[in-house]
Amino acid sequence: MAADPQRRRAAIIGTGLIGQAWAIVFARQGWQVRLHDVNGAMLAEAGTLIRRQLDQLQAHGLLRDAAAAAARIEVAASLPEALAGARYIQENSPERRDLKRELFAQLDAAAEPDAIIGSSTSSIPASEFTEDLPGRHRCLVAHPVNPPYLIPVVELCPAPWTSAAAMQAARDIMLDIGQKPVTMRREIEGFILNRLQGALLHEAFRLAAAGIASAEDIDTTVKDGLGLRWSFMGPFETIDLNAPGGIADYCARYGGLYQSIGATQREAVPWDGARVEALAAERRGLLPADELTARRYWRDEQLMRLMRHKQQQDNGDENG
Amino acid sequence: MAADPQRRRAAIIGTGLIGQAWAIVFARQGWQVRLHDVNGAMLAEAGTLIRRQLDQLQAHGLLRDAAAAAARIEVAASLPEALAGARYIQENSPERRDLKRELFAQLDAAAEPDAIIGSSTSSIPASEFTEDLPGRHRCLVAHPVNPPYLIPVVELCPAPWTSAAAMQAARDIMLDIGQKPVTMRREIEGFILNRLQGALLHEAFRLAAAGIASAEDIDTTVKDGLGLRWSFMGPFETIDLNAPGGIADYCARYGGLYQSIGATQREAVPWDGARVEALAAERRGLLPADELTARRYWRDEQLMRLMRHKQQQDNGDENG
Repeated sequence: MAADPQRRRAAIIGTGLIGQAWAIVFARQGWQVRLHDVNGAMLAEAGTLIRRQLDQLQAHGLLRDAAAAAARIEVAASLPEALAGARYIQENSPERRDLKRELFAQLDAAAEPDAIIGSSTSSIPASEFTEDLPGRHRCLVAHPVNPPYLIPVVELCPAPWTSAAAMQAARDIMLDIGQKPVTMRREIEGFILNRLQGALLHEAFRLAAAGIASAEDIDTTVKDGLGLRWSFMGPFETIDLNAPGGIADYCARYGGLYQSIGATQREAVPWDGARVEALAAERRGLLPADELTARRYWRDEQLMRLMRHKQQQDNGDENG
Repeated sequence: MAADPQRRRAAIIGTGLIGQAWAIVFARQGWQVRLHDVNGAMLAEAGTLIRRQLDQLQAHGLLRDAAAAAARIEVAASLPEALAGARYIQENSPERRDLKRELFAQLDAAAEPDAIIGSSTSSIPASEFTEDLPGRHRCLVAHPVNPPYLIPVVELCPAPWTSAAAMQAARDIMLDIGQKPVTMRREIEGFILNRLQGALLHEAFRLAAAGIASAEDIDTTVKDGLGLRWSFMGPFETIDLNAPGGIADYCARYGGLYQSIGATQREAVPWDGARVEALAAERRGLLPADELTARRYWRDEQLMRLMRHKQQQDNGDENG
């Protein structure tokens, strides 16, 4: 098949929650999308579930034409049919090395010669399921945050044999669909996002375990403090603006304090036993178990409103 | 002087940036505020600088009546005049133990018997400057984030001798002025906010130093990923919603992964030398030094817009 390197056609393999969300991300930016899943029942209902989410996005002002986006998404009865003509393939199978190894062999064998193949895995480096493939140079991890149509960051992580050209192509495609790609230079456990989250969580667990403050107050410290600037600047830009001479000045002024603090943050407390029971008891006091689902809808509503707010800032501000 | 425990009168001692901001926080919620500073020139210009900030808040829809708030703020020629009748005193002197020790002795001697005295210090525990005072039970740290009229969290940290009643009174006062108090149960270096920030920063420095990604992409991981949820939920609520059975379920599912990651996060890289030079070079490439000031105005604009957005969410949502 003749391959136009500019063609905007993607294949989404595996149509659970993450696969559905990827279909939305591509389709809302004008890409043609074909879906496939080995589970016929899951594949059959994917279209309906996607349409519901598209309508919700339109209702929140995050999408102009849900029907048009839905019309760009079609179901493919077979894997080769899904892959035909696709410039980009996103794999969303369960988090098992053996499954991904087998599926990537099929994908690499049937994909267009110039197609890039990304995996949504959050925990398995691409080197563990692509090593033996003829096309291993075009395989990489493209790890989204759920749901990617509301949280735009995508971590692109190469295996040692992933080509620079494939990484660049994946980055360009992510930018084209309006996501925010993060280009990693090599594999590391947890990628970047979960490593940063883990570092902060470990300190939060230490403080709670030591009885310094309640989990609720630790959450307040973030949502009414640290998290505000971090929602539109990263940690480096934040400190760059927090000393008259920028980040170098900040490090000279406060580096000693942070080194001293860091020396008391070496040990991670285990996330088990009485410690977790106490945290869970506090959380269930604040939010009973039967309200978790409703609170997840609230969270997604908050995210949609925040993203619309951020889009308005970006449109009115070239620096944003 | 007769003391009404409900009286809403505060004294702000030290009228630099933080002191000015505290005056705004109290006055916009209807408190009467008296300012004092040993530096007469600084005290003389405080009113003008505060008025400018009040006007800016009104222009952004964060304050209804800047003139009325300004009218509640007055300058006191002496310390006793500033303290007379004050239910709450906020100290904002330079970060030096000797200065704070001397000033707190004066404050404790002249304050109303029921007044609570809080220090804005970000790094000196109250035990280091209040031990010998007759009224040490009513002294504590009330650490704001700059500027407190945009970032509502306030860390309340007791000395070992601070009374539970004083901590509760300080918390009630902070709630009364619309801030978000965090009650610490004992002193720890860096309090909570800077410990959480430091934990994340140390991982960001490690990732940058190891060449895993650029500082810009690490910032993207936060501002287009982690920081979005953290701007309206804390880290504990975030993971509580990220597993079907809540936080206990999350810990059971992912605790092993985070322990494994944590084992590689023990060493803090020093914030100096070539490492900081490389980060500073990258930042200055993104934002030249002569644009730092303009970017700080941009940050404050973004914060004001975000806070107005959050207020709108809170008004329309009792869970917010």
